[in-house]
Amino acid sequence: MNIVKESKVFSGRVIKYRHQSKITKTDMTFSIYLPPLTNKLHKFPVLFFLSGLTCTDDNFTTKAGSQRIASQYGIALVAPDTSPRGLNLPNEHESYDFGSGAGFYVDASVDPYAENYRMKTYVLKELPDLLMNDNAFACLDMSRVSVMGHSMGGHGALVLGLTTASNSESLISFKSISAFAPICNPSQCPWGKKAFSGYLGTDKKLWEEYDATSLAKVLNLKKTINILIDQGTADEYYVAKQLLPENFKAVCDTRKNIELELRFQDGYDHSYYFISTFIEDHIKFHAKYLGV
Amino acid sequence: MNIVKESKVFSGRVIKYRHQSKITKTDMTFSIYLPPLTNKLHKFPVLFFLSGLTCTDDNFTTKAGSQRIASQYGIALVAPDTSPRGLNLPNEHESYDFGSGAGFYVDASVDPYAENYRMKTYVLKELPDLLMNDNAFACLDMSRVSVMGHSMGGHGALVLGLTTASNSESLISFKSISAFAPICNPSQCPWGKKAFSGYLGTDKKLWEEYDATSLAKVLNLKKTINILIDQGTADEYYVAKQLLPENFKAVCDTRKNIELELRFQDGYDHSYYFISTFIEDHIKFHAKYLGV
Repeated sequence: MNIVKESKVFSGRVIKYRHQSKITKTDMTFSIYLPPLTNKLHKFPVLFFLSGLTCTDDNFTTKAGSQRIASQYGIALVAPDTSPRGLNLPNEHESYDFGSGAGFYVDASVDPYAENYRMKTYVLKELPDLLMNDNAFACLDMSRVSVMGHSMGGHGALVLGLTTASNSESLISFKSISAFAPICNPSQCPWGKKAFSGYLGTDKKLWEEYDATSLAKVLNLKKTINILIDQGTADEYYVAKQLLPENFKAVCDTRKNIELELRFQDGYDHSYYFISTFIEDHIKFHAKYLGV
Repeated sequence: MNIVKESKVFSGRVIKYRHQSKITKTDMTFSIYLPPLTNKLHKFPVLFFLSGLTCTDDNFTTKAGSQRIASQYGIALVAPDTSPRGLNLPNEHESYDFGSGAGFYVDASVDPYAENYRMKTYVLKELPDLLMNDNAFACLDMSRVSVMGHSMGGHGALVLGLTTASNSESLISFKSISAFAPICNPSQCPWGKKAFSGYLGTDKKLWEEYDATSLAKVLNLKKTINILIDQGTADEYYVAKQLLPENFKAVCDTRKNIELELRFQDGYDHSYYFISTFIEDHIKFHAKYLGV
């Protein structure tokens, strides 16, 4: 594991790492924010941020204004990349919404993507395993972990959050979930149909495992999971029906162990300006469930 | 004047404009943040941010976390680009520290740059004139204007701020000045020597008009001007003696109408992480002199 870049910010440190992934069989990068450590025995809870189409770990880290609040609350932030990099698979670099920068947080089952495009396992197992076992991260309390994300990464946060909440075998279990303008029902929107066809093929049963709206219908949750979603009303992708938060809400309203707060934010678009405006609310929301 | 992009952020609006400049004889872009307007008759004071080498108006606008504080204080933010664009002059695109992205806020006197590289006049006259006269900016109070900047833009803030403070003929007069890791004595550092040689030639008298340390020695200020500078101690360009804040401070200490607070920030580097950490202090500092 190599440090690509490290900077001090709000008295803590933001560090970008590169490491060899056994899961994606490529180098992977991720960025982490470690709040200021005032006591060597203290351990920080951890909040993952999953990014959207075209992004790397840098977009959230440089644009969201997250470190100010994470520093105040004493919460570490982890931002993975959005796909394997450095490959040259068919159709991998032709469009912004499939392949490179568009891993969709699935484990692909269709060749040739199945070999490398395994972002679900990367985020839920390999990366947490590394954070639990590398001495550089001894200050993290990986028993207190939550997840948030944006757009494709909001889809990732909802799906992976709900999946770990319902699976007692998971290496990590997210305590709370939040999302900015998430793709809530990918089986029913152009982005999701394209990605799922490409990565998962035609088996619609498999699609349901990666669709937050489908998952929410069938999951058997032992404990209540709290979810916060912010959606801008001037978001072009919301208007184009790529996001479909109403579909997710309709299902959550029928489930007693899923507590969803869906907020429509008047006039906000899909950009990091929107995220930066509401990131404080999201970190505060997670702080409650992370025991901060 | 065309709107390139507009987004809502912290209840206000960030807008990127493109316009034809008579001064640089090229298209120019700038970004502006307008806080939420609660009263149609209200006018916001204005804080300029001048950016550093390689930057456009986007770096500050997307990375500094400035809108949150500007929204709270009701201060508009204006970020110009750092040079003319779209030209193809000799040596203009060969290096990061001369030509495109490196206008150094001077009016060049050496051909072929003298025709277009006139960033001093652009920032002090053409852009303020546009902000004063276009209806889109009727909410701005251009009689209350301050300036800040980073690195090369910190140099710009110091030089243009001191220049307007000492010249009663200026269209605008900056009420206060601040800078993050500014180039304080360009005549004495590699970046400045290269830029000034290229834009201004060998006349060292002319160099002095664009060197904050030289200017501070000779200016006759009728009123006290307050300056805040933050300098990270882990800044590679500070270590490499490109910035030389001590030289500027030594001169300011001898002048009764220049009140400089130079703060060294332990462990911070030259990046926008450093800026984002201290931008709140800077906007608060200016708020006092802008009568907010």
